[in-house]
Amino acid sequence: MFSINLKGKNKYYNLYLNLRGEILSGRLKTGEKLPSKRSLAADLGVSVVTVELAYEQLLVEGYIRSKQRSGYFVEDLIEGGSVGREPPQTPEISTAKKYRCDLVKGNIPPHMFPFNTWARLMRLVLSDCGEHLLERVPCSGDSELKRSVSDYLYRSRGMDADPRHIVIGAGAEHLYGVIVQLLGRDKVFAVENPGYVKISSTYALNGAKFVPVSVGAQGIDVAELSRSGAAVAHVSPSHQFPTGAIMPAAERLKLIAWADAVDGYVIEDDYDSEFRLFGKPLQSMHGLRPDRVIYINTFSKSLAPSMRLGYMVLPPALYEKYLKIFSSSANLVPLFEQKTLAKMLDGGYFERHISRLKNYYRGIRVKLLAALSGKCEVTDTGGGLHIIAKFPNALSDDEIKEKAERAGVNIKCLSDYLLSPLEGVEKRAVINYCGLTEEILN
Amino acid sequence: MFSINLKGKNKYYNLYLNLRGEILSGRLKTGEKLPSKRSLAADLGVSVVTVELAYEQLLVEGYIRSKQRSGYFVEDLIEGGSVGREPPQTPEISTAKKYRCDLVKGNIPPHMFPFNTWARLMRLVLSDCGEHLLERVPCSGDSELKRSVSDYLYRSRGMDADPRHIVIGAGAEHLYGVIVQLLGRDKVFAVENPGYVKISSTYALNGAKFVPVSVGAQGIDVAELSRSGAAVAHVSPSHQFPTGAIMPAAERLKLIAWADAVDGYVIEDDYDSEFRLFGKPLQSMHGLRPDRVIYINTFSKSLAPSMRLGYMVLPPALYEKYLKIFSSSANLVPLFEQKTLAKMLDGGYFERHISRLKNYYRGIRVKLLAALSGKCEVTDTGGGLHIIAKFPNALSDDEIKEKAERAGVNIKCLSDYLLSPLEGVEKRAVINYCGLTEEILN
Repeated sequence: MFSINLKGKNKYYNLYLNLRGEILSGRLKTGEKLPSKRSLAADLGVSVVTVELAYEQLLVEGYIRSKQRSGYFVEDLIEGGSVGREPPQTPEISTAKKYRCDLVKGNIPPHMFPFNTWARLMRLVLSDCGEHLLERVPCSGDSELKRSVSDYLYRSRGMDADPRHIVIGAGAEHLYGVIVQLLGRDKVFAVENPGYVKISSTYALNGAKFVPVSVGAQGIDVAELSRSGAAVAHVSPSHQFPTGAIMPAAERLKLIAWADAVDGYVIEDDYDSEFRLFGKPLQSMHGLRPDRVIYINTFSKSLAPSMRLGYMVLPPALYEKYLKIFSSSANLVPLFEQKTLAKMLDGGYFERHISRLKNYYRGIRVKLLAALSGKCEVTDTGGGLHIIAKFPNALSDDEIKEKAERAGVNIKCLSDYLLSPLEGVEKRAVINYCGLTEEILN
Repeated sequence: MFSINLKGKNKYYNLYLNLRGEILSGRLKTGEKLPSKRSLAADLGVSVVTVELAYEQLLVEGYIRSKQRSGYFVEDLIEGGSVGREPPQTPEISTAKKYRCDLVKGNIPPHMFPFNTWARLMRLVLSDCGEHLLERVPCSGDSELKRSVSDYLYRSRGMDADPRHIVIGAGAEHLYGVIVQLLGRDKVFAVENPGYVKISSTYALNGAKFVPVSVGAQGIDVAELSRSGAAVAHVSPSHQFPTGAIMPAAERLKLIAWADAVDGYVIEDDYDSEFRLFGKPLQSMHGLRPDRVIYINTFSKSLAPSMRLGYMVLPPALYEKYLKIFSSSANLVPLFEQKTLAKMLDGGYFERHISRLKNYYRGIRVKLLAALSGKCEVTDTGGGLHIIAKFPNALSDDEIKEKAERAGVNIKCLSDYLLSPLEGVEKRAVINYCGLTEEILN
């Protein structure tokens, strides 16, 4: 009747696939009667059970129907032709260019990560928590980690953050999306210009409107912000990326006065406050007005990029709203990582790691400044891991990047971080020395 | 001059906090000169360095300014009063009611999770991969896990999914959001009615428009879908939640013809196909037309709710678009969990786990059906872990739920899953026996 190619271990499944192919291709036509189980089994040299299982599968999927005491018939399917089309081939993803020295990426060198400590704590969590690790994590994160983060914020930033109002997320980007869902897409989000492009692109991806607002030597221009129609301002007041501007207290108070006036919020993105190489980290804006400031930070930068671990501190009223929206949602960070990080924070390992990193970067910074000396004018506000180098004699930003490229150096200019045109940003390279190693500088 | 309360280990920081408080409260006024470092140090009985550090911190934060050779002065801040307000207190989160028996939640009993295997594989990953675990994971996930998932789909579902087109995400909900970002918020998403409410609420949260389309005995009503204006249909054709409907082949082909006609997509949500208790899982729609079907599934259901691990198989053209949008984004699932799951799949542990679970649930099902026998009419299509029990003599859905509540049983009715009114759903309880244990049934 029709030829069937039966090979492999799972005979019934292959038979099913073959019969399905015959039906879909139209070789077995609508209404046509299938051979009896017994005769097909004999024809193919398989057991009756094999045929039975295959028919059962076709039946339950609706390819055939059974008529009592008369056998199995092909179902009335849509006219063929539209199925079985070959999908077009996708080329392999091209790998990114490898640079000798990358001054764009913001990841710490892998050898600086305290891997042995982390692995030891992971093993500890496995034996300590056991099957508790399988439990569903509340939407805002594990309460133990929330308390650890609150304690850490108090120790390191002098912040008084109620553990209950902390939300653990899978990195800062993920939390930007949560903020959009929380505040609503009708709000306009002001972002810094120049700024970290990922912020505005994440807002766009989440369907929120954003407006670029100029950044000067004192951070975001609050007067321009007031005219922008925004209700939320996403800023990095302690060390703006990429300009490095530090927002002075007067400007911070103006920003909060603005939030009061529009009944809006300030998102304080504290992405690199741990890396203030001299003195204590600057006081957070959250400390000034916890009811107007959403404080957000990430461990992905200080630990490892593969660890998506961020957190935010919400104003109490906003946390209430958060619970209403997300209470039935799962937290996206595995409990395992949350428990490990809690142990890392509580045991002081994280702060030891940061202090080791800071020592390391102080050394890198000295060598970097020495290497740049006389070649450019460096603006360095002492925070974070990037500086601005002005090359007054360069012809253009493109020339700076081309020269770097020829030397195997990946670099971006201030103008690459512009969201809308701005004066006085030319001939300035943004040097992110996060990933620099001593070997490269020697 | 002014009283300062200096206690605790970190004197400079406390001094800074005190001075900042004086400035913000207005006790130290704009333009007022601060005492010289030396005199303040003598007054307070601290070292000059302590005062220096505190002044430095106030300076860099813009609370004071320095005039050459004349000392430090309080900066011109905004008029006080708006700072230091006490945030309102949030009450503790109320804990959810505990039931003797929960027939709503879809989590497997914790004792069924192969914790020892999982812990052993985690330790193996730690020692095998070492510091490679810190590397950034490409947006679509670890390529080893993508290959493992592809192999698993071939073995268990007969699916031919190119590993390259697989996207690993932090659970199904997270991937629904990615799909919205991928297809755009201008598209209308059709969702099943009745249906899993989390799906429509996640679309809403992500700013996408959705329209409920009726589900009958043969799954989603394709004629109604055609009139709905939707361009994407989110369906669970192998075992609809909550009706249990299985979409027959003819309806599946109609659905694909619809997607062709509107140049849209079918999202095949295969959330519980592993738990088809009799026979092989039904053939996926993806197998029919990989260019029109987005296949999505989760491991959170079959492993543990704390593990946010889902995946989707994208049509090749859509995967190209995905790469364009997300190539610079990080994958949200820690590499550690991805590598562990890959080992679990490749070693056959996952399939052994599923087969053990299925045996377990077959036993549960028999006892459950016996317990229900004579009390209601059960609709059971043999798939998944929930059945529909019709109580023709019940007065109303509320009565069914109240009776259950009094017996310590959490239950929902079919009508609880309605997104818009539908005929013929009354007096039907949805019994999810995923979390049932033998002890409860005995």
